[in-house]
Amino acid sequence: MAERKANAEWKGSLNEGTGKVSLGSGLFEGAYSFGTRLGDDPGTNPEEWLGASLAGCFAMALNAALERGGHPADSVNAEAKVFLGKDDTGLKINRIDLTADVAISGIGEEQFQSIAADAKKNCPISRALAATDITLEARMV
Amino acid sequence: MAERKANAEWKGSLNEGTGKVSLGSGLFEGAYSFGTRLGDDPGTNPEEWLGASLAGCFAMALNAALERGGHPADSVNAEAKVFLGKDDTGLKINRIDLTADVAISGIGEEQFQSIAADAKKNCPISRALAATDITLEARMV
Repeated sequence: MAERKANAEWKGSLNEGTGKVSLGSGLFEGAYSFGTRLGDDPGTNPEEWLGASLAGCFAMALNAALERGGHPADSVNAEAKVFLGKDDTGLKINRIDLTADVAISGIGEEQFQSIAADAKKNCPISRALAATDITLEARMV
Repeated sequence: MAERKANAEWKGSLNEGTGKVSLGSGLFEGAYSFGTRLGDDPGTNPEEWLGASLAGCFAMALNAALERGGHPADSVNAEAKVFLGKDDTGLKINRIDLTADVAISGIGEEQFQSIAADAKKNCPISRALAATDITLEARMV
């Protein structure tokens, strides 16, 4: 249905080398390093791209599900927080916390939460991340 | 160890609305839509961000593993192709194809492939995507 791609190049050692990532669309190219990923150096990192992928997918899916349910939202604001930690195997995404602020009216809390939970479960990026713990806090605003 | 985030906002209907994604680092903000995700409209989409996350993580992990194995590479070029399809549940990431072109010398093919396979299995984004079929073709160049 759709084939998308991205590239990354790494040069140099783990601690002192640098990486460069680029999107297939050509809309973004950015540098990353040990310090921007595991430390506090300003810059980008694979975890925020993963967060963008999930937040983008979920915002679109939740909007679509509310629309299908007869309760279109004015807007859906989603945020994904990605927690990178460690276990015995090595680095691990310990958890992703999703939040959604949805500008909507005319729908009950129970139905809203049910649709939000379904959208979180079934959006294709969530499905790809089925092995990862993802929490959801959805709010009507 | 590290907490990263990204945001996405969707406004309007599925077919005619638009989304906006932004990285926590502030380095990228881009628009996406039904047409840029499921059609051929030029633009970005969650699948290429997922590809960037995996390619970036894998390039860094493979480089680090080769370095640890006593065979540092001059460079690692990784590409992730993300295939979005459908099944009975809905949209699904059917497969991700990873390729890596590694500028390296002084290492045998068998050891190289073994290290590459381990890096693919153990990089934290691969682990987060354990529910998804990921192929790997690694080449010494």
